Amino acid sequence: MSAVLVEALREAAAEIEDTLDTLLPPEEGPEAKLAAAMRYATLGGGKRMRGFLVLESAKPFGVARASALRVAAAIEMLHAYSLVHDDLPAMDNDDLRRGKPTTHIAFGEATAILAGDALQAHAFAILADEDTHSDSAVRIELVRRLAIASGPRGMCGGQMLDMLAEESNEPPTEASIGRLQLLKTGKLIEFSAEAGAILGKAPSQQRHALCAYGRDLGAAFQIADDVLDATATAAETGKATGKDADAGKATLVGLLGLDRARSQAERLVAQAREHLDSLGERADLLRMLADYTIDRRS
Amino acid sequence: MSAVLVEALREAAAEIEDTLDTLLPPEEGPEAKLAAAMRYATLGGGKRMRGFLVLESAKPFGVARASALRVAAAIEMLHAYSLVHDDLPAMDNDDLRRGKPTTHIAFGEATAILAGDALQAHAFAILADEDTHSDSAVRIELVRRLAIASGPRGMCGGQMLDMLAEESNEPPTEASIGRLQLLKTGKLIEFSAEAGAILGKAPSQQRHALCAYGRDLGAAFQIADDVLDATATAAETGKATGKDADAGKATLVGLLGLDRARSQAERLVAQAREHLDSLGERADLLRMLADYTIDRRS
Repeated sequence: MSAVLVEALREAAAEIEDTLDTLLPPEEGPEAKLAAAMRYATLGGGKRMRGFLVLESAKPFGVARASALRVAAAIEMLHAYSLVHDDLPAMDNDDLRRGKPTTHIAFGEATAILAGDALQAHAFAILADEDTHSDSAVRIELVRRLAIASGPRGMCGGQMLDMLAEESNEPPTEASIGRLQLLKTGKLIEFSAEAGAILGKAPSQQRHALCAYGRDLGAAFQIADDVLDATATAAETGKATGKDADAGKATLVGLLGLDRARSQAERLVAQAREHLDSLGERADLLRMLADYTIDRRS
Repeated sequence: MSAVLVEALREAAAEIEDTLDTLLPPEEGPEAKLAAAMRYATLGGGKRMRGFLVLESAKPFGVARASALRVAAAIEMLHAYSLVHDDLPAMDNDDLRRGKPTTHIAFGEATAILAGDALQAHAFAILADEDTHSDSAVRIELVRRLAIASGPRGMCGGQMLDMLAEESNEPPTEASIGRLQLLKTGKLIEFSAEAGAILGKAPSQQRHALCAYGRDLGAAFQIADDVLDATATAAETGKATGKDADAGKATLVGLLGLDRARSQAERLVAQAREHLDSLGERADLLRMLADYTIDRRS
């Protein structure tokens, strides 16, 4: 990974962490345990790739850093809620996440369900607050897009497909896996790359370009994740690996094999980069991020 | 209950049901099971008191019926999600709701968690859509208030307090129970009564009056609910009764006894009615609703 990207990711992650720390409710009052679980689930980990996408997609349009950071934090809260719920015993039943016990292990199942619910609401509250942007038309567009990306035709729909695929006796197809992954993780990544353009009231051609970049990046990222699951160790990724194969989970790696899955991810990365052409060098970090997606080891 | 109110509630519930049916995702495509669970959890039951509050608080300000109905439906979806999650085995572990099996009994626990999550996102998506109101400032204010009312300092915070109260060895106080109920159910009822004023861009004095009405109504409603739990039968209410006492749950009925709890509810209803003075006879149904709150048997 390029040293420039390493430094930019590190700096963005630190800023997003500070913003999350400020925006998450304090551990105060009789309901402090809920705030503690929300903070545990959100702070202190993760690559913050979604938040980084917001910051970098905002840069070409001169968006105030504080605005972009609030949106980045809201998306990271939404993402954190989805992980808390995905890890629950009734769902994927994971004990380990980012190298530490999952939220329901640390706080109990009921509090984990509730912390996820509260993180979702809090993410929308942050987007809706006028501190995020002075123009209400911008704020409502962010809310609308996040709600769609995470709802029944987005992330939740994808999680449903994932659960059904595991129960199903029918073999998955490239199309069914693609749709599952587009909904489950792709829509939120797509929105993250679009959010900066919304904040910056970008021309629609550039907004669509960032959207398309996010879609291809998300698809490449998911394939790379499956490749990592099949090839890396838990020590490298900080979470259990080899789980997909153990669970008989439908992935493109399982369907196409490692080599063809890798070359498909490479094609997607090349395509993602092309969408950025009209943004010139202001999008260099987004290009580097696309390359990194398939080079990473964690 | 007055015949006028009976008819108005019945009519509103039917309109809200139709609106929900239109706005909920159709049971189509490979993820149809998620839509089915969302529809099961939301359609075909409930008094729709929150939705009715939206419709009636909108009337004095000449809000288009279609706008008020969309907001009513969004709040009912939010409420439905909270019931689905509250009923889960890790939470209240309820098998029966509105006289039928709870969502996790009918669809499995994982799908119930997911349907709740998707209902929350969908509620925000509906508020954010321009069909709800042409003015983005109105839409974002609805989103902001709903997110706060349902988040860590609202409904989710109240549910946390409820869980902690059940584990605690300290005896509850009137203040601690009041705060629990204000957060757990009060904030959403308060917002429901405020929503029509937001939609109608009402003067802030009237918006605050409706807010205060909703707060007192919500408090009275909760006490009445606890009184019902202690006195009514499951056949009357369509859900398990006597559960609070069995669970050693902290309620004002347990703390004050039935008679004093009843008279406190009556004081709250009188106070709720007073807040409506400036709205004149356009608020007559809201007055009748306040009276009904403590007279109902289900």
